[in-house]
Amino acid sequence: MSQPMRKPIIESHGYPGEFWGNRRRSGGGAGTTAWRSVGLVLVMAFIGGTKANAQLMNDPVRIKPERVLAVLEKLGGIGKTPAGGISRVAFGDADIKGRSYFVKLMTDAGLAVRIDAAGNIIGRREGSVAGLAPIVVGSHLDSVPNGGRYDGALGAVAGLECAAVLKDTGLDLRHPLELVIFTNEEGGLIGSKAMVGDLEEKALGVASQGGMTMREGVAAVGGDPARLGEAVRAKGDIAAYLEIHIEQGGVLEGRGIPIGVVEGIVGIARWDVTVEGFANHAGTTPMKERRDALLAAAGLITAVNRVVTAVPGRQVGTVGRIKADPGAVNVIPGRVEMSLELRDLDAEKIRTLFERIRGEAANIAERTGTKIGFAAIEDRTMPALTDERIRKIIEEAAEELGLETYRMPSGAGHDAQSIARIAPIGMIFIPSVGGISHSPLEFSKDEDIEKGVSVLLRTLLRIDATR
Amino acid sequence: MSQPMRKPIIESHGYPGEFWGNRRRSGGGAGTTAWRSVGLVLVMAFIGGTKANAQLMNDPVRIKPERVLAVLEKLGGIGKTPAGGISRVAFGDADIKGRSYFVKLMTDAGLAVRIDAAGNIIGRREGSVAGLAPIVVGSHLDSVPNGGRYDGALGAVAGLECAAVLKDTGLDLRHPLELVIFTNEEGGLIGSKAMVGDLEEKALGVASQGGMTMREGVAAVGGDPARLGEAVRAKGDIAAYLEIHIEQGGVLEGRGIPIGVVEGIVGIARWDVTVEGFANHAGTTPMKERRDALLAAAGLITAVNRVVTAVPGRQVGTVGRIKADPGAVNVIPGRVEMSLELRDLDAEKIRTLFERIRGEAANIAERTGTKIGFAAIEDRTMPALTDERIRKIIEEAAEELGLETYRMPSGAGHDAQSIARIAPIGMIFIPSVGGISHSPLEFSKDEDIEKGVSVLLRTLLRIDATR
Repeated sequence: MSQPMRKPIIESHGYPGEFWGNRRRSGGGAGTTAWRSVGLVLVMAFIGGTKANAQLMNDPVRIKPERVLAVLEKLGGIGKTPAGGISRVAFGDADIKGRSYFVKLMTDAGLAVRIDAAGNIIGRREGSVAGLAPIVVGSHLDSVPNGGRYDGALGAVAGLECAAVLKDTGLDLRHPLELVIFTNEEGGLIGSKAMVGDLEEKALGVASQGGMTMREGVAAVGGDPARLGEAVRAKGDIAAYLEIHIEQGGVLEGRGIPIGVVEGIVGIARWDVTVEGFANHAGTTPMKERRDALLAAAGLITAVNRVVTAVPGRQVGTVGRIKADPGAVNVIPGRVEMSLELRDLDAEKIRTLFERIRGEAANIAERTGTKIGFAAIEDRTMPALTDERIRKIIEEAAEELGLETYRMPSGAGHDAQSIARIAPIGMIFIPSVGGISHSPLEFSKDEDIEKGVSVLLRTLLRIDATR
Repeated sequence: MSQPMRKPIIESHGYPGEFWGNRRRSGGGAGTTAWRSVGLVLVMAFIGGTKANAQLMNDPVRIKPERVLAVLEKLGGIGKTPAGGISRVAFGDADIKGRSYFVKLMTDAGLAVRIDAAGNIIGRREGSVAGLAPIVVGSHLDSVPNGGRYDGALGAVAGLECAAVLKDTGLDLRHPLELVIFTNEEGGLIGSKAMVGDLEEKALGVASQGGMTMREGVAAVGGDPARLGEAVRAKGDIAAYLEIHIEQGGVLEGRGIPIGVVEGIVGIARWDVTVEGFANHAGTTPMKERRDALLAAAGLITAVNRVVTAVPGRQVGTVGRIKADPGAVNVIPGRVEMSLELRDLDAEKIRTLFERIRGEAANIAERTGTKIGFAAIEDRTMPALTDERIRKIIEEAAEELGLETYRMPSGAGHDAQSIARIAPIGMIFIPSVGGISHSPLEFSKDEDIEKGVSVLLRTLLRIDATR
């Protein structure tokens, strides 16, 4: 259910788009100048690429890296584990403490803060043009158990910094700016799913990592699980959505590129794979008479890798879980259960790869005298593409700062993929040292954080200015 | 420590051999007739192969199959599980009940029964020639948890039947006959190891499957763990050792052959294999940048099979146990632990195969960016060959009954392999339906049992007669 009071009235000229433009008014003509607001003048100053850097250094609309790092440092102390990681699992004490701390920072940055029915924290700065839908910067503060300091927190702090810069400089955007801290991202994108009306009733009864049900957790952080409909937004309610995140992979670091322009969040398909052979005595059963489920499984694991890497692209395929029964040194495994996961930006490609894997499995089963079955796991996610216009704006913003960019998929899930159902989305990645995440070893360099947040701010200003 | 009173004084003429003949007296010359005792006359009657079958049917020195099956049936009721299997785990109530029952049967069959210090039940029938070492028929009555009715029990009942036939017919062998029911075969050949002085002090402290330590268990079945030395026999103390067992594999059934002539009990070498890769996000880590421990493990499992089957012979290689960490659907496994087991009659062949597997592992590790390590597990067993003279005698005995034989290794361990250290051994296999053992489904047909026990009796008579 959408809320009429939040219906967007976008004044968008010359910027066509499925969502962005789909409610635009007829107020402006094609010839209207694109540079009207205060922000636009500043954006003008950025144009000129790397040569303009010295000029940018004196630009008042710049982030304060020391402020960004100080808040990250402070957040890193909330839920800190002995190993130096972060356990700020959704709905737990540390999560609630982190949220309270952040609400204060948001208020200090001039945002009007409220908690929606899904427990999402929403801080809003009004725009200069009446009736425009907000540009939303989103992220989360919850973490996995014993996770790292940057996953989620970086995006939250980056959004906060954008608001703070606007407040410091007194700059008004044309659009409202909303900074959204989504509820329980790590536990299944709970807050962002709720915002697009995609959180099913039964999901509320599921236990979250901390032990509470989602329903109890949402209530614990100030939401109202009985009125989730009030948190729902419809197509057009958000002019554009931006999210900055650590890459969680080693691509950017490996290439020495500071800014990743995310092409989309991959779709994920998962299967429970069962290999049925026949358990028998490992000493008395000749090799030719075996129906070894683990030998068949090994062939399939190798085949998954071969099929996935045989075609160009950035698709990935993983067998992460395996169990062999009975699992004794002197017994030929009679049964293996394992997982199969495929991810790609293209749902059709996932389907094709799976069909090839299934074909290989049939051959392996034939050859090894086993039966191999695949049961699709229900919670598959569809790929969510980012908006090509926003990708280009991120690239232009980076170019202004003399920063190289690289287009890449996001192999991990993010709240952006929920919001993609109702709004154009864009995502910025910064390098993760060693590609490590969800670990106390998760680390991104200060200079990369500064570059990423700067690109986010410039992207925000450019989108606001574009019509 | 050996016991002087049991020192063999073998009167063996024209039958040379490492153990058999190594203490022979000079009493007989090469020209002495081989056929002197009552048994020999009967053995003579068997010669002539299948044509003699009608004649054999009237032979008084024949087994009584109905008696064999009745005792097997009775034993099958002791420790019977709801699933129709047998749990007669060593030292448990059912084991003790089974042993008591069997001691009575042995006594009824004319054997003088005692329990040695290792808890082995020894029933003895004296021979007609003074000073000869006994021919020993051995087996066990203990089972694995939820095992089958035939493993062990068949051999015990077969030995009992030989003694009963001798008693019924009043036939005296030249050698003493000993029927030995070994203590805790399934728990590590405890009784037979003790008999050859190979049971280490520390093994006594190990918990057996039923919970007691071996020391407590040996005492519970009437042994004296403090005086194990008294149970030890030396080379020459046993003239020949025979054991009949179900095959526990599908080779005989598959070939339609009723009698397996065991070439030896394979040596077993085991390793703990560790594959170290790097755990990482299954969505964000490109295929080329992975160090997937499970992918490497899969390659190794396939390589083990390839190496083992690449050369002629009946060697087997098995990976039965595998564990991938962290074992989540969305995480690339960073570490895999698995088992490797190789078995063959030739220890040198096991060494060669392992070296090849290690070479393959090095290539896989290189290719996958992982480290693969092998840690040998201590309890390896050396191959134990059967005596070629006894193999031939078994074949001749089977031929008398018109039964086809097949030479094969025993892939499973048996008490015979302990005794092989001090005496020439022979083993007879009968078919296992479906090759199944250590299972309630373990089954051998009545007719195959009859054939096997008949061959055992004839083999015993022939060995006794041979000089």
